[in-house]
Formats: sequence, structure tokens, C-alpha cells
Amino acid sequence: MIGEGGYQQSMNTLIKKKFHSIVGDDHFRDRPEDLISYSYDAFTVEAAPDLVLLPVSTTQISEILKLASEHRIPVTARGAGSSICGAPVPIHGGIVLSMTMMNKILETNTADRYCIVEPGVINGDLQVELAKTGFFYPPDPGSMAFSTIGGNLAQNAGGPRCLKYGVTSDYVLGMEVVLASGEVIRFGSRNVKDVTGYRLSGLFCGSEGTLGIVTEITLKVLPQPEAYRTVLAVFNNLDDSAATVSDIIGAGILPAALELLDKVLINVVEDANNIGLPRGAEGLLLIEVDGSEEQVEKELALITGKARNNNAVDIQQARTPAEREALWRARRSLYSCMARLKPNCIVEDATVPASKLPEMIRGIRAIINKYGLLAGISAHAGDGNMHPLISCDMRDQEEMERVDKAIEEIFKLAMACNGTLSGEHGIGIAKRKYLSMSIDEPTLNFMHTLKHAVDPHGILNPGKAI
Amino acid sequence: MIGEGGYQQSMNTLIKKKFHSIVGDDHFRDRPEDLISYSYDAFTVEAAPDLVLLPVSTTQISEILKLASEHRIPVTARGAGSSICGAPVPIHGGIVLSMTMMNKILETNTADRYCIVEPGVINGDLQVELAKTGFFYPPDPGSMAFSTIGGNLAQNAGGPRCLKYGVTSDYVLGMEVVLASGEVIRFGSRNVKDVTGYRLSGLFCGSEGTLGIVTEITLKVLPQPEAYRTVLAVFNNLDDSAATVSDIIGAGILPAALELLDKVLINVVEDANNIGLPRGAEGLLLIEVDGSEEQVEKELALITGKARNNNAVDIQQARTPAEREALWRARRSLYSCMARLKPNCIVEDATVPASKLPEMIRGIRAIINKYGLLAGISAHAGDGNMHPLISCDMRDQEEMERVDKAIEEIFKLAMACNGTLSGEHGIGIAKRKYLSMSIDEPTLNFMHTLKHAVDPHGILNPGKAI
Repeated sequence: MIGEGGYQQSMNTLIKKKFHSIVGDDHFRDRPEDLISYSYDAFTVEAAPDLVLLPVSTTQISEILKLASEHRIPVTARGAGSSICGAPVPIHGGIVLSMTMMNKILETNTADRYCIVEPGVINGDLQVELAKTGFFYPPDPGSMAFSTIGGNLAQNAGGPRCLKYGVTSDYVLGMEVVLASGEVIRFGSRNVKDVTGYRLSGLFCGSEGTLGIVTEITLKVLPQPEAYRTVLAVFNNLDDSAATVSDIIGAGILPAALELLDKVLINVVEDANNIGLPRGAEGLLLIEVDGSEEQVEKELALITGKARNNNAVDIQQARTPAEREALWRARRSLYSCMARLKPNCIVEDATVPASKLPEMIRGIRAIINKYGLLAGISAHAGDGNMHPLISCDMRDQEEMERVDKAIEEIFKLAMACNGTLSGEHGIGIAKRKYLSMSIDEPTLNFMHTLKHAVDPHGILNPGKAI
Repeated sequence: MIGEGGYQQSMNTLIKKKFHSIVGDDHFRDRPEDLISYSYDAFTVEAAPDLVLLPVSTTQISEILKLASEHRIPVTARGAGSSICGAPVPIHGGIVLSMTMMNKILETNTADRYCIVEPGVINGDLQVELAKTGFFYPPDPGSMAFSTIGGNLAQNAGGPRCLKYGVTSDYVLGMEVVLASGEVIRFGSRNVKDVTGYRLSGLFCGSEGTLGIVTEITLKVLPQPEAYRTVLAVFNNLDDSAATVSDIIGAGILPAALELLDKVLINVVEDANNIGLPRGAEGLLLIEVDGSEEQVEKELALITGKARNNNAVDIQQARTPAEREALWRARRSLYSCMARLKPNCIVEDATVPASKLPEMIRGIRAIINKYGLLAGISAHAGDGNMHPLISCDMRDQEEMERVDKAIEEIFKLAMACNGTLSGEHGIGIAKRKYLSMSIDEPTLNFMHTLKHAVDPHGILNPGKAI
């Protein structure tokens, strides 16, 4: 039975048995309570799959995809489910392919600065392993404690540190991928410089599982910096904090992180973490520099100078590694803190060139006020990656209409500032309806041409990314 | 008339007139002496086009491609023609699209760290413009004084500085591209973080003009470092110089450049430049560090320590900017110096992980000796990007057979070391026959699937890259 979109609407027992025989009892789930567990991510839309498979090898995934192709069954790969754009939600049913059992670090090679991992490896676990050898993997999404490298790759995840170090795609040297047909391809290598054939890593990063299932990833890693300095700069005016960011970036300084919080967020974070944030402040910058001891001291002096020039009322430095870690933990807790206020929290990530930051912040604040919403503004400010967090209640239809209107206005403003819809969270299902604001029709058609060439039956995560 | 490969073998006068009417008299070339000028690059194969067009706008290129598609005429884009893999040589005839008249820097924005250029802008000219504002564009291929940004993009060019700073694709934020159909697409943005739709920049970088004609490029730029230090470390044993490289990289130091030359090259460079290189040395490292004053001093001390531990017999520091520039000019003159010895010089760029460098250098030297060739070895050693330079005479068939055998053995050795066929020069026509050593059949088929989807009649630079 073929339904809307050409997908089989329900899977018959015979086909289920075939999938069962590929992965075996322990890696097969089809009880309703199991299916519900795989029906959502951190976005607001839910949809249950017909089947959940937890493969342990490339060979199994190849067999699964051959069978899924034959029967036109949608296959949606899933890491930790921490996406906030609905990317791993199986909106057309079919199979959720949970990659969590493929979680081995296959090799770490610090002499040649790479590691090879399976997609289910958790970002934070990889960091712990690398730290033992004095290395690190720069991309640090807020979810790093639980999100997987495969999921990070699918969304081309960023994070605070990406201001200085770049995003996931800057670290992917090679991959193994199972295509919709079940064929296995391998590209890239262990070499930072490699121009042999098309550069497919770039295409797969951020493609949200719509082009293939990634089964092995070779990542570039870096030596840990010798020293860090972490400071909080406090402002009585949000514009002053934004101007400080522009001044720092404009002066050619590249901090490891440059995070902005507004008063709403300062207070919800302090409510939850109780680490002494200045509740009366209108704007807060959390700034980190890294490098040699000499370099961090020098950059710190330049940065605090810029902050003082822009009327910073206080500048506090983390005195111990524990204090530093507490500040970062607080920053990473933003979403969960906001979620205490109302049942739902929508996080946007429109991104603009850094010089447009003050204009963008003023604009977002005005839009939030215009629609009477409860929202805070945070930003990976150094790279103009805005994160307005809007507290809301999905059951309140009137409020959700205001939220929708506000989001659309925020995107329009970002476009007017030469920005983009999403800096690091991805399109998923959350932003597909806005895509045409950012990508013109011929370009979107071109993306669909590529997708169709690679996945002619459209079984791979249908309805996402493009 | 359709010949081998399905392309029209000669263009009739009526079609030529249509192309003429698109670009006008001053931008149209079809005299034999003109065609010969566009029949070669710095590789050894020559083939004249039927027509050379020098468009000045995206609109003209769109019209050209519509017409070429209609008549199945091959179109090969060409920058400065400095490719060393035959990428811009029109081996199936048709049109050479010279991009040299689209050479405007459209915007430089240092506050937001990007610039927007037309593809015909020369890398060196862009560097001069950026230097005025205290910024630079890191990729620095040996050809940077004359090669174009469009050509750099098509080959995903690297260079010495790419050890620390990454290659061309690490700096491309967005593009405008004319497809084979004549349709114009635009993707990416001015934002470093951008996950809106597929990440097409990654795919187009290094695709050698086989997927589309790039007409505008947005590049990330960086603030110039405060200080440089440039040193020469001299060794009586090539293995010691290679071991020094491994030790530096293994210790977590990342110089801006780390170049190796063997005795043959030290002497040909000294013959041509007369800058006082140590003619008796077996190995030479040209090392540059950049950053803050404190950082470069510290790194320099660490690096010279590693060199001394590996029996460096002399370490000389460039005392003035002029001395530094002379050293780099000498390094960039390698190919032309080797070309003095025999009529031809074949430059390979097999690349291996840095720890394999000593093994690879010993192996290449053994292969060169085995086949009795006149060759020197240079390397962007920090990233394992080998450049054996083989002097030869294309008219000497017996010698060329030895050259071919040696190259194939070098590639086999690189593969055994987890390396790749090409680090930065590209595949073009030079290395297509070796592709299957590095890329398996399903993966190569996948690349051809993408190519066919995007360019169904195969008019864009046929016979290259994949």
C-alpha cells in the first residue's frame, strides 16, 4: 500500500521478520512503548516509526537499506535524539535506525592528528579519551555531553568554540557511508590535504541523513592549548555588550568563545545554577581565550580593554578550573533552564555577520516585545550565531501563532542583515517552510536533483533538510 | 557530427556566430594562434579548443552554457593555466572559457572577515589588497603570484601555509555557479556558520570545473599575524630532517610552514637564486612560525631544539623581511629551477600522514634510484604532502617509461602508508588512470552519478577529475 509521498504506509509481518533476521532479537524494537521512545527529538513535532533497528555493523546497515529500498520504506538515522529541528523524527514512519550501538572509537592517532570513530560515539566521551593524550576535538555543541558524533555530522554542529576553531565539517577528513541502495562507499582519507576525486565530506556534513547513512568517520583533532582564561564582562546595557563583541572581532582578536546572554537568561541561569551571576545586568559576555600563557594574557588585556571602553561595569575572571567549568556548565544549561518557565522552549539560530550583531539584537528584542513573548536572547556572539530562546506552551494556539509570526520576522531581519536561517541547528522539519527566504528556487532544485540522483526512491529521512 | 564521447567534433560557422554575438568581438578568439595559447597548462598534454571565449559576466556565461548544452559542446573553464595536472586542457575540444576578464574584487569586509571576488582575481593581487587592511587569505599555492582564485577553487589549492591554516575549501563561504543548463545557483553566505540546505561549497571545491562554472566566490579572510620567524635548519642526513618534522608535529607544535628540500633541490635552487643555501647539505627544512611576538619566540625555541636533537648542523634565521621573502621566493621557484635541467619536469604530490614521512622519503629516494631518474624531493612536510620533482624529456620514450613506472610505485607506496594520490594538485588528466588505487569502484560510481545528475550531457570539462 503506497500512501502520500509514495511510501508504504504500514509494514507487513513478513517484511518485519526480514529486518529482524538482519539485526537479531536484541537489536529489534516494535512494541508501541519502544516506538514512542524514538518518536521525538528536542523539537516540538512527534511521529512514531513502524520499527526501530539498532545495527552494530556496516554490513547490517547495508542489508537493511537494500531491503528498505526494495520495499520503499523510509529510513531515518538517529543518534542521541538531541536535535532541535526535528531532523531524526520519522515523519513518514518506516524505520528509525538508532546508531547508538555503533559507538566504538576505532583509532586515535595523535602523531598524525586524527581519530576514527563509529557514528554513535558521544562527543563528550571522545573528548575524555582525547584529553588523556593532550588532544581535543574542537566542535562543542551545547549537547556535547550526550550528542553523538554521527548526529553532530548530520547537523554540521557548531558550538561556542567554533568561533575560533570552525564547525564539524572543518574536522571531517573521511567517511564510510551506506547509500540508499545498500552500497557502501568510502571517501577522504587520514590526510588533511586530499584532492583525490570529489570532496564528498563537505556534501554529507549537514545533510541530515538524507543522502546516506554514515557508518565511520575520520576526524581531525588538535593539540590542547597550553592555557585558558575565562572572564565574565557585565553590562548595564545590552547594546554595549554587542558593541564589545563587534570591537573585539573587528580588532582582529579571535577568542576561543564569545558568548552573550541577556537579562532574562542571566536570571533563569542563576535561578537554576546559583553561581553568582549579576542578576541586575542587562547583558553578559562569557569570553574565553586559549593558547600559550603569554598569548592568553595579552589577548585578555586587549579584550577587557574593549569591554571597559564599552562601559562594562564589572569584569570577573574564573580563578580555578572548577570555576571555569561551572560557568560553561551554566551556559550549556540554558535550554533546560528556560524549559522550567513554560512547557516548551523554541530555540532559533538565525545567524548574521558579526558587525550586524547590535542591529540584530535590538531587532529581536523589539520583535519579542511586539508579540508579547517570554524570551531570552543568547548568542555565540563572535560569529553572529543568535540563539533567541522563546518559552511557550504548544497547547496555547494563540500564543503559538504569535511565536510563529515572531520567528518569521526574526528570519526576515536576519536576511536583511545578510544572514542565514540556521547557523548550526539545521533545517530538519523546523525550518523547511522558510528555506525559500534563504535559498532561491534554482538552487533548491539543484539540491533536490542531487538528492534524487543519490536516493531515487526518497527513502532516506524524507521530508528533511531541503 | 558526434564523435567519441558523444561530443560534436567541429563547430560550424553558424554556432560560432551565436557564441560571438554573446561575448562580442573583443572577447572571442578562434584564430589558430589564439587556440594554441589555450591548449596547455603546466602539465605535459596539449589539446586545442575550437573556440576561446572571455566572458565578463554571469549572464554571458549562462547564455554560453545554454547554447553549449543545446549543441553538446564541451566547455572547459580556465584561470591562469598554471594547473599541473592538465585540468584546464580541452582534451575533447569545444570551448575554453577564460575567466581572466572577470577579475574584480567586489567587496572586502574586514569587520566581518570576508571578501567577495570574481573567479579571475589573481591570488597574489587579492593578498596585496587585503594586506592594506591588515588581513590575509591563507591558501598560498606556489603559483600564487599568477594563479586565479577560481583556479585555486577548482583544484582546491593548498600551499605551505595550509599546514597551519587549511586549504582553499576551508575558506570558501559561498559561491555563485552557472550550471551546465545555464541556470544560475547561489549557495552559502557571508556567515562562517551556515547549515541552511546542503553544503555545496565543499562539493564544488576541487571539482575541476566538471560540475559548474563558478562566477563569484565569498572567501573567509584572517587578520595578519603580529610576527613571523623564519629559519633554515640544515642536516647532513635526509632522514634526520624528516625525523625533525615528525617530532615537531608530534609535539603539538603547528608552524605556519614546514618545508623540506633534499640535496638535489638545494643545489638547483641555489644555482638559480644564489642566496647562500648550504650546497653540501643532504636535507634542509624551511620553517616559519607566526603569531604574537611571545608565541613565535617560544615556538622557535621548541622547534630549533627538535632540530638540534635530530643532528641539525646549522640553524639560520632570516634577519629581515627581505631575507624572509628571498627564502620564500626561492622555495616557490623550485619548478622553474628544475625545468632548467631537462625540457620537462613532472611534479607529483602523493600525500601521507606526517608520521609516515621518513618512510615515504626513503621509499621515494629508492624508487628514483631504482629507475635511474634525475629527481629531487621537496615536501610540504608538516602535512605529509610530498613533491618529488622528476626532470625528464618527453621525447625520450625509454626515459618516460621509467618515469611512469616510478610514479606508479610512488603511488603504491603512498597507499601503503594510508596516503592519497594528490594532496593539492588535483587529478585532471594526469592521475585519472591511478584513481582506482585510491577510490573504490562504488565510490567512483557515486561521484559519476553526481556528475551525471548535474551535467547530463557531460559538457563540463569532460575527462577530468573523476
